Amino acid sequence: MASALLVTGPDRIAAAAHRVMARCDELARVSAATGGIERVYLSPEHARVNRLAAEWMRELGMTTTQDAAGNQVGRLEAHSPDAPALLLGSHLDTVPDAGRFDGIAGVLMALEVVRLLRVPADADRWRSPLPFALEVVAFWDEEGTRFGKALLGSSAVAGVWHDDWWALTDADGTTLREAFVEFGLDPSRIGEAARRPDELVGYLEAHIEQGPELDQRGESLAVVSSIASARRFQLVVEGEARHAGGTPYERRRDALLGASEAALAVERVCRAEHHVIGTVGQLEAYPGAVNIVPGEARLSLDLRGEFDGSRDRVWSALSHEFDVIMGRRGLRWSAREVHAAPAVFCAPTLQGALRAGIVSTLPSGADEPAVLFSRAGHDGMVIGEVADVGMLFLRNPDGISHHPDEAVSEADVGFGIRALAEAVLQLAADR
Amino acid sequence: MASALLVTGPDRIAAAAHRVMARCDELARVSAATGGIERVYLSPEHARVNRLAAEWMRELGMTTTQDAAGNQVGRLEAHSPDAPALLLGSHLDTVPDAGRFDGIAGVLMALEVVRLLRVPADADRWRSPLPFALEVVAFWDEEGTRFGKALLGSSAVAGVWHDDWWALTDADGTTLREAFVEFGLDPSRIGEAARRPDELVGYLEAHIEQGPELDQRGESLAVVSSIASARRFQLVVEGEARHAGGTPYERRRDALLGASEAALAVERVCRAEHHVIGTVGQLEAYPGAVNIVPGEARLSLDLRGEFDGSRDRVWSALSHEFDVIMGRRGLRWSAREVHAAPAVFCAPTLQGALRAGIVSTLPSGADEPAVLFSRAGHDGMVIGEVADVGMLFLRNPDGISHHPDEAVSEADVGFGIRALAEAVLQLAADR
Repeated sequence: MASALLVTGPDRIAAAAHRVMARCDELARVSAATGGIERVYLSPEHARVNRLAAEWMRELGMTTTQDAAGNQVGRLEAHSPDAPALLLGSHLDTVPDAGRFDGIAGVLMALEVVRLLRVPADADRWRSPLPFALEVVAFWDEEGTRFGKALLGSSAVAGVWHDDWWALTDADGTTLREAFVEFGLDPSRIGEAARRPDELVGYLEAHIEQGPELDQRGESLAVVSSIASARRFQLVVEGEARHAGGTPYERRRDALLGASEAALAVERVCRAEHHVIGTVGQLEAYPGAVNIVPGEARLSLDLRGEFDGSRDRVWSALSHEFDVIMGRRGLRWSAREVHAAPAVFCAPTLQGALRAGIVSTLPSGADEPAVLFSRAGHDGMVIGEVADVGMLFLRNPDGISHHPDEAVSEADVGFGIRALAEAVLQLAADR
Repeated sequence: MASALLVTGPDRIAAAAHRVMARCDELARVSAATGGIERVYLSPEHARVNRLAAEWMRELGMTTTQDAAGNQVGRLEAHSPDAPALLLGSHLDTVPDAGRFDGIAGVLMALEVVRLLRVPADADRWRSPLPFALEVVAFWDEEGTRFGKALLGSSAVAGVWHDDWWALTDADGTTLREAFVEFGLDPSRIGEAARRPDELVGYLEAHIEQGPELDQRGESLAVVSSIASARRFQLVVEGEARHAGGTPYERRRDALLGASEAALAVERVCRAEHHVIGTVGQLEAYPGAVNIVPGEARLSLDLRGEFDGSRDRVWSALSHEFDVIMGRRGLRWSAREVHAAPAVFCAPTLQGALRAGIVSTLPSGADEPAVLFSRAGHDGMVIGEVADVGMLFLRNPDGISHHPDEAVSEADVGFGIRALAEAVLQLAADR
């Protein structure tokens, strides 16, 4: 493939990668927590970061909108204003005590791809030189940190919003509906964020791997084959709160000990399965006093698998384990499913374009690029409802993410920008 | 023993028991939590309840003080104002979502004992007819709910206050020192709460059992032989926070799983020991997101034993277990001891007086009263530093305490008031 991009030379790529790293640092300073990064959906940090992203989009000649779900969108028109759009992007929200690259790097790299590809429309304006418009989307609430339900922003864009989500509450008891209004959004207009399949060419996302595989292979980039199937549950274990000193063991129905056994059962059962991984990330005992036997414990369960079937089989096995554990201890347990997403397979065309993009960054004679499945969830899981999805993974040293030590190298970001830009050109050539 | 009290007849006792039950209900309505009882140290509820208790003390002709630690004290002088005082009382603070009798019943029963024993000093005033004054003390922060350190109020009275406690913080980061000032107390005057051994005859406390033993025996009252030895720790387990999807099990250092194993080890090790009981009442995972492998977990450990030696042996065994668990999982752990109290043995004289008091409530020919050791901690553990301590246990149906279902019958409260009053008369007769 002889691409138009390659003649731009390595200097523009290096400058682009440098800008992405500097902007990741800049966004890291917009945080609800001092000394750490935390940006949740519909927060003051959300508004501030959207304003910054919109500014960067306008600098590139894009028209900008904050959509009805609070996602920040920039559009660079093609020659024809009726042309469909290729979506490029990722998310700008974070988990608590986050790293600075998960999601963020993908949005900023998308902006650099626009910068590399845009051409002058006239003296004042820029346009896409391709048979499609270029849109950069910065999604919000991919992580699901605030309301327990992930992928809210991309669900609105995919037109799969559920009205019962309005009643979800955050830790302070604020409903999603109230948070929308406080943020300045109109819940009744949520449908306006939805996109139609015929106006979209596809969705491409660059993201750090969030796992150690590329690092172990010593490679910079991978094509993603599919995004894991996921289910999330909130579990409640109920026993009886009693005095810690006065209650002999045979009289106790200690909810925390039941929950502890349940957390260890998740590890044991999932370890024995291939391609299924389960995590208890939250656990709390109530009433939570040093001298009271816990009468209740609440814990979260996150289950992911390459295939829906094996994931569901593990959930059945765990439910049985929980029955046995709680039965033996005189406890009750219940589970509320708060998130479910089937495995999403990336479109072969987009996988091919990304593969070609990665190859363009490699010395001739190099091995074929790695093809990985993503155990982590991504906005593409729901965007797949309205558009073909392709994903590019960047090497993530030691696989650390959702942690302040999360890292990606500037060199790999440069390779990623080039691969993504080449993939976009390849898609244009294929049309 | 022919006592002056017996001639007062059962009607006064029944009225006294009825008043205790009604006042327990009244105090239950003074709560920081709607729909549950929660009164912590130096809170608005503390101030409100002290005002009520002071009013009830003054109705009985007692002079009242809120001491330098926030304990509410009422005194009924003997004929000689220089006479030493017998302390009667318990505590008015509660755990979260508490019952209405733990501590509270003991304070209110002490007031009824004063009502039964007092005699007119002149037309306007009342006095103690005994060779000692009667003081009712309502201690605060027996439970240690707010600052993690229990027995704060009684420690001040016993003169064993530690200056490093001033820096203890509550869940909102308020220090004990700041809370004192906000409540209107002067931290520099804490020493004024301390009592001298020569001004005290002893300390008698009535308390619900907080265990099922009297209920199982079908008896109303027991003499307490000793109060358990206790140690409390705050444990921190440190691993590494990582992405829940992207991190395979062999790369995880999941602090919550280590903490779960530790909680189960506490149960296993203590169950194998006689007369030692261990409880993990608090456990929380950090950062506490559904999709992050916990990098840190914090848990509390409460250890009680009839003897200091066996309690300490269990702590050594647990420390070894924790080393093994955490070592296997690549985790670090540390423990901060936040409370330690040796076993306190009740004074034989006071045990004898209480035994006689209980016998006076029994039909002739009944079995000897039960003698129990208290696995729960009580203010007597530190009051033992300055005075002889005696305790009376009341039957606690099904042994439920620290829970809204905590109960005691009005009939047993009546027996308890009579036993306590008779014990006081017995002490006077013995002097």
